[in-house]
Amino acid sequence: MTQDDLGPPSEALPFATIDHLRPLTQGHQEVIFAQGKTPEQVTTIAGRLAAASGMFLVTRTDAAHRRALAESFPRALVNELGRTVYLPQDPEPPPTGRGTVLVVTAGTADLPVAEEAAVTARAFGNRVDRLTDVGVAGIHGVLSQTGVLRSAAIVIVVAGMEGALPSVVGGLVRCPVVAVPTSVGYGASFGGLAALLGMLNSCAAGVTVVNIDNGFGAAAAASRINHL
Amino acid sequence: MTQDDLGPPSEALPFATIDHLRPLTQGHQEVIFAQGKTPEQVTTIAGRLAAASGMFLVTRTDAAHRRALAESFPRALVNELGRTVYLPQDPEPPPTGRGTVLVVTAGTADLPVAEEAAVTARAFGNRVDRLTDVGVAGIHGVLSQTGVLRSAAIVIVVAGMEGALPSVVGGLVRCPVVAVPTSVGYGASFGGLAALLGMLNSCAAGVTVVNIDNGFGAAAAASRINHL
Amino acid sequence: MTQDDLGPPSEALPFATIDHLRPLTQGHQEVIFAQGKTPEQVTTIAGRLAAASGMFLVTRTDAAHRRALAESFPRALVNELGRTVYLPQDPEPPPTGRGTVLVVTAGTADLPVAEEAAVTARAFGNRVDRLTDVGVAGIHGVLSQTGVLRSAAIVIVVAGMEGALPSVVGGLVRCPVVAVPTSVGYGASFGGLAALLGMLNSCAAGVTVVNIDNGFGAAAAASRINHL
Amino acid sequence: MTQDDLGPPSEALPFATIDHLRPLTQGHQEVIFAQGKTPEQVTTIAGRLAAASGMFLVTRTDAAHRRALAESFPRALVNELGRTVYLPQDPEPPPTGRGTVLVVTAGTADLPVAEEAAVTARAFGNRVDRLTDVGVAGIHGVLSQTGVLRSAAIVIVVAGMEGALPSVVGGLVRCPVVAVPTSVGYGASFGGLAALLGMLNSCAAGVTVVNIDNGFGAAAAASRINHL
Amino acid sequence: MTQDDLGPPSEALPFATIDHLRPLTQGHQEVIFAQGKTPEQVTTIAGRLAAASGMFLVTRTDAAHRRALAESFPRALVNELGRTVYLPQDPEPPPTGRGTVLVVTAGTADLPVAEEAAVTARAFGNRVDRLTDVGVAGIHGVLSQTGVLRSAAIVIVVAGMEGALPSVVGGLVRCPVVAVPTSVGYGASFGGLAALLGMLNSCAAGVTVVNIDNGFGAAAAASRINHL
Amino acid sequence: MTQDDLGPPSEALPFATIDHLRPLTQGHQEVIFAQGKTPEQVTTIAGRLAAASGMFLVTRTDAAHRRALAESFPRALVNELGRTVYLPQDPEPPPTGRGTVLVVTAGTADLPVAEEAAVTARAFGNRVDRLTDVGVAGIHGVLSQTGVLRSAAIVIVVAGMEGALPSVVGGLVRCPVVAVPTSVGYGASFGGLAALLGMLNSCAAGVTVVNIDNGFGAAAAASRINHL
Amino acid sequence: MTQDDLGPPSEALPFATIDHLRPLTQGHQEVIFAQGKTPEQVTTIAGRLAAASGMFLVTRTDAAHRRALAESFPRALVNELGRTVYLPQDPEPPPTGRGTVLVVTAGTADLPVAEEAAVTARAFGNRVDRLTDVGVAGIHGVLSQTGVLRSAAIVIVVAGMEGALPSVVGGLVRCPVVAVPTSVGYGASFGGLAALLGMLNSCAAGVTVVNIDNGFGAAAAASRINHL
Amino acid sequence: MTQDDLGPPSEALPFATIDHLRPLTQGHQEVIFAQGKTPEQVTTIAGRLAAASGMFLVTRTDAAHRRALAESFPRALVNELGRTVYLPQDPEPPPTGRGTVLVVTAGTADLPVAEEAAVTARAFGNRVDRLTDVGVAGIHGVLSQTGVLRSAAIVIVVAGMEGALPSVVGGLVRCPVVAVPTSVGYGASFGGLAALLGMLNSCAAGVTVVNIDNGFGAAAAASRINHL
Repeated sequence: MTQDDLGPPSEALPFATIDHLRPLTQGHQEVIFAQGKTPEQVTTIAGRLAAASGMFLVTRTDAAHRRALAESFPRALVNELGRTVYLPQDPEPPPTGRGTVLVVTAGTADLPVAEEAAVTARAFGNRVDRLTDVGVAGIHGVLSQTGVLRSAAIVIVVAGMEGALPSVVGGLVRCPVVAVPTSVGYGASFGGLAALLGMLNSCAAGVTVVNIDNGFGAAAAASRINHL
Repeated sequence: MTQDDLGPPSEALPFATIDHLRPLTQGHQEVIFAQGKTPEQVTTIAGRLAAASGMFLVTRTDAAHRRALAESFPRALVNELGRTVYLPQDPEPPPTGRGTVLVVTAGTADLPVAEEAAVTARAFGNRVDRLTDVGVAGIHGVLSQTGVLRSAAIVIVVAGMEGALPSVVGGLVRCPVVAVPTSVGYGASFGGLAALLGMLNSCAAGVTVVNIDNGFGAAAAASRINHL
Repeated sequence: MTQDDLGPPSEALPFATIDHLRPLTQGHQEVIFAQGKTPEQVTTIAGRLAAASGMFLVTRTDAAHRRALAESFPRALVNELGRTVYLPQDPEPPPTGRGTVLVVTAGTADLPVAEEAAVTARAFGNRVDRLTDVGVAGIHGVLSQTGVLRSAAIVIVVAGMEGALPSVVGGLVRCPVVAVPTSVGYGASFGGLAALLGMLNSCAAGVTVVNIDNGFGAAAAASRINHL
Repeated sequence: MTQDDLGPPSEALPFATIDHLRPLTQGHQEVIFAQGKTPEQVTTIAGRLAAASGMFLVTRTDAAHRRALAESFPRALVNELGRTVYLPQDPEPPPTGRGTVLVVTAGTADLPVAEEAAVTARAFGNRVDRLTDVGVAGIHGVLSQTGVLRSAAIVIVVAGMEGALPSVVGGLVRCPVVAVPTSVGYGASFGGLAALLGMLNSCAAGVTVVNIDNGFGAAAAASRINHL
Repeated sequence: MTQDDLGPPSEALPFATIDHLRPLTQGHQEVIFAQGKTPEQVTTIAGRLAAASGMFLVTRTDAAHRRALAESFPRALVNELGRTVYLPQDPEPPPTGRGTVLVVTAGTADLPVAEEAAVTARAFGNRVDRLTDVGVAGIHGVLSQTGVLRSAAIVIVVAGMEGALPSVVGGLVRCPVVAVPTSVGYGASFGGLAALLGMLNSCAAGVTVVNIDNGFGAAAAASRINHL
Repeated sequence: MTQDDLGPPSEALPFATIDHLRPLTQGHQEVIFAQGKTPEQVTTIAGRLAAASGMFLVTRTDAAHRRALAESFPRALVNELGRTVYLPQDPEPPPTGRGTVLVVTAGTADLPVAEEAAVTARAFGNRVDRLTDVGVAGIHGVLSQTGVLRSAAIVIVVAGMEGALPSVVGGLVRCPVVAVPTSVGYGASFGGLAALLGMLNSCAAGVTVVNIDNGFGAAAAASRINHL
Repeated sequence: MTQDDLGPPSEALPFATIDHLRPLTQGHQEVIFAQGKTPEQVTTIAGRLAAASGMFLVTRTDAAHRRALAESFPRALVNELGRTVYLPQDPEPPPTGRGTVLVVTAGTADLPVAEEAAVTARAFGNRVDRLTDVGVAGIHGVLSQTGVLRSAAIVIVVAGMEGALPSVVGGLVRCPVVAVPTSVGYGASFGGLAALLGMLNSCAAGVTVVNIDNGFGAAAAASRINHL
Repeated sequence: MTQDDLGPPSEALPFATIDHLRPLTQGHQEVIFAQGKTPEQVTTIAGRLAAASGMFLVTRTDAAHRRALAESFPRALVNELGRTVYLPQDPEPPPTGRGTVLVVTAGTADLPVAEEAAVTARAFGNRVDRLTDVGVAGIHGVLSQTGVLRSAAIVIVVAGMEGALPSVVGGLVRCPVVAVPTSVGYGASFGGLAALLGMLNSCAAGVTVVNIDNGFGAAAAASRINHL
């Protein structure tokens, strides 16, 4: 893809500047972070992106954002749990990444972040698989999935509380492991700080970490890796 | 044991008050925390405890403390790695606790804290066993020891960095698990804070935690449990 | 109890995996943490656990959870203060633990956490007793209960603010003491951090600590100890 | 005392300005904080204060400061433990405060801070008494001193680790209680933070707190109170 | 006052234990902290205290507490700003403290905490005066009040943001200064932490500090001092 | 490579257990973290690894470790700046990764961490290139290297202080970016915390982060990616 | 302007003291911080300021404040995004500062803080310009504005997340740069702490920082500079 | 000055890249931060800068750096207290800034940071004045200097402990105030954090802040302002 495929390099709205060169420089279309924007603003930006590239992805939506987007873009895929709205190109192109991005969660409460990651990875052109509720306190449950884990190209591990799952997974696979701490927990989890610190101090060599609850960022990283 | 076996209830030195009732109220003789005391002070207190009960335990000694104590009490057992000096009664009485206290370490650098725990548990009348270098990044190494873990009455798990081992162990055994975070690590381990928070947020139900590097406290807790 | 008594080892719901082997590996049935789950999800999981073992325990419920559970399981015991719903086996089996788990609170505001601990301990097969509102600023009130404290097999101490009560209790009894910091307080209590740090630094040897407000975890630990 | 008794209101040295009005405005002579100053600087300022008022107090001295001061002012009282050097007026005037300032310590390691407080209180014109090594884990030891505690006009409580002693003392006496957290401890004491937070959250009404290790400040506060 | 004046030493309600000896041991009646209690609980405890001593003080009330108390005790004094309800004895006895407690605030937003302090000081038998809105950025405003400041027996300084006012006041007066940090501010005030740290590090010797927003505690301390 | 190539799966020394299966499970030989080990221990483990696989890598060495290793293994490559000692196989096999790992540093003081990363990446079979001293305050210096940045397969960005470089680089390249915060700085850098938080909050999508000063971990992650 | 132009030096309302000398001492009229004040209080103070000087500025208003002020002062300029209400003198005097204050934002979500800064700078007599949505991940967007940046007298840079923009801007211009961290972000942004620390550690020499979200303070500083 | 006056735009040494365009882009020559560099490295870079521009400034030197620089550049001015070495052009050009930069210190221990600021400001072409030891606890000392404060073009306020001085100064002057928190203090000063937070929360509008102990940065900011 070259700049010519993209039309004007950027577009200025009163409240935001859309960078149409992003696919060239960073490998994927700009994504709309809905939090703090009105439904109208989100719908307007989504429309511009759809017009320019035939697709858009909106993350961190609330119910009003989702209602407005679903109305304006009936073809858009709404993921309530992951709080995403994704309009694929029509037809959705086949995945372009090398292998499968596997999104693993430690507990039920980590699912919203995991879904944000899974939808983002798909929107960025990756085959996605999921493995849920494999906490380290039931270590045999993790180990029974070793085959699934080893067949992935990249593993995204989403975990709150003590954030120990990436260390265990990182010791079981040779592929890249991206860890996402979540704010799941209470008391001395300090809003995900415990999981974040746990993952940064992982004894498994080569685990990398993104911000707390940042399923989007983990998927963006995984997609960069998968398109190497 | 009654108060009569113990002589005077307390003894005042210029720099400390020795509580000779401690065995009655808390179940074990007072222990000398050497850090911040001079070799002379430590040796003096040790002498009084030896005179009163035939035994003493000194923790957090430095080389000068150990030299002074070894000279004054040739029968004392010096543990360089654990920084303890232990004078057992002569002969050392057999263990009085119900079962074995198993001290498990995640990495080589956690050994000093583990040794402090092991010597303390022995001095408090417990049979002690050790299991070393079983980090969660090599999870099969942990699992291959499931039998050993399940044969213990109490497991003390000593780990730095992300502090994930107690969660894994807590999911493998039904007995009490006491977790000791260590200051092993660097950067975002923040002197053991990461391991401490990880252990407090453990997803394994029923893991309890002591202060960072507090091998002594873990053994004291284990001994309380083992003498139930 | 063997695995044969338990039916299939695990059961996968769309939103959670139920580990029916938990009683074998960890000594008690899986417990439902209601926070973040819908009333429907909680009721469904509760039904599966009731079918498999004749009992369930749900913690951290809100009013909607409690209404839904009370409707579906009229025999269930609802504890408004402790936010728990407990369905005992019919008839409830006698306690299996060695002795009594005593739950002690420093102030009125600590009662919800204490009740969570008390109900959990009962559900895990322990005889439970309570001692309330014995703060350290009225030390004679604590001391007047020395007999009660010494008759317990395990003491769970629940305290917010400065978290000093476990140190005093730990100096009065020889049995295991599990300390639960609570988020009671304001300002520099920093959501329970002050109490947590206080308890971790307790000068009474052998006090162990669980997460802030984690009455459930304290009871799980006490039950492990009591079933040694 | 009026300004006329004091000579010039201030005196400028190249490295410090001496405020000779301090006795009028704040009720006591300026005190020299030696840390970060050279022995020569300290000796020079001490000489000026001695010349102006016949007395001086130096806190936080190291061995070199103490040597230099002892040489220049043979009459000065050196307190090695408290790291103070105090030159009283000749003869030392009788105490001017209403009652006795009682300095209480929880453990041996808190003594340096307690001595700094005791010497400062004496230098500011107060009768001083000491009570040492009365930790809350041996609560009967504290209670056996209730009479001593109640006879004081002000109690300064010096404690590290969990900092619980001021709460117990505050519940036993009606007089003002000034709490001094110390940096005694390790791990999650975080340099005295645990004791500081514990004291700020004390459940005993009316306990006030000064900075970690600030024996000087506690004595200055006690002296203000005692000279009311 | 002796114990005989007080009736039974304590009274157990289902949700709290009332310590009727508090006036003897700590110098004032127990005070009701309303936060976290129902209006019914607060009204019940207030009734028992009124019956025992003819007075009560309730702090941290919300509108529902205040409505319930005003209805049950028409004679009670409601302070909306300070969130207190105070029932004085009838007639209110004259102040028993030595001098005036002066409550100084740095800004308008600090007034609720200041009023809590003022009402508490009055309820504990002290003459109270107020000085408002004297921030350090308008230093001449502070200085113009030097006379008022110097006429007080004890000064309570209530300040948020950088918490600098106690240092300035502490340099102007010889009497005791109790500093109350408030949670007033935003961003890097971190809920009052900035003001708290500022006050603990005050360069004015002899300033003592209480918990963030703890007007009650400051007044309790001032009253202990004023009744020396 | 299969397990047969590796000999026995593990080897127990008195102070450590060597996991000879690591190349199979995690893709590279175990690496020796020298900090906290004696020169003798390090040399012994190095010898075992050399015997098993013909190579070893030691990180975080001090001068004594380096001297001992250089003496025992004259062929070993000592990197003083990066504190590493690397014994390549003889002859060193050609790189096996897909592309070049580019190690970028923001400032001179970040070089030790960058060198640790560069040596590790080489030892794990990657072609390595370096780009030094390209801080964001001289943004034209960064931009003039856009071509070099875009030719890399993976970019490791090493930066202290505000940690802003990964955001700029992440916006210039489409490939994976691994960010390493360093403890370079003072004051409010809080030992690298500022850089760590900056990198975790990077506005460039897809930047992942490792622990402070963890050049080794960044290279391990990069090698996992490069061998996808 | 002299004091005579200003009428009485201060004016006491029941809830605040208005300092009419502020223009003389600090160079601008007092500004009303609406947060925590009732609409009536704000309107009253605004009226007094309008009467004294013909103008007022209110910051941190909510909808009710804005409604009340718009009703009472129809000529007032309401900025919904910036949450300010500004009544200029009639006619608004021309800017008195030397040059233009340029307010730069990194992202859309930083606009409220930027608008607060822009309105404040205008009210303090400065010409103001804006540059929006120039994040460092799109560095070419920043650089394309180098001319605009270099034409400003002072640049205020408003940024959340990693707070990197001031470093880049500080390297492009010679004029003063005032950085405002915002609370924009989530997880490890910790309410703006990440941006604050990033800016304090900026590698661009001469960047200064104000409190998180403090657009007002940045503008006040810029105005001081611009009126030098 | 244009780029032609400067020779080559940059110069690459093995360990650093010298940016000779800095005077054009940021208004002053690059400055050498000695900490972490060898005396040889520092002397080499200093030589290149001297060759290019006839001057250099080195900050954060230790004794070895100073010895090496004094030997190589006998004309260089060494400031022991401020740890700087400054080689002015020969002859030193007259100040180019508009007015005087006044460096104010709260206490003796803040002098090293203040001297770093003063030397830097001079080296950047500013007239510099000093005002020392004017702490807020002696507020009359501050006020007696109001005239000096008001005659400055920019005031740099250097203070540790509670960091209150900038608020007082900011209320006395209309000119820009740059606050430098220092790490002076102990205990709850947490290495300068207390002063930093105090300054960020200053109630004086328009005070800006730099990193802890960053005298250099404050002077760089002041020089930017003074050359407006």
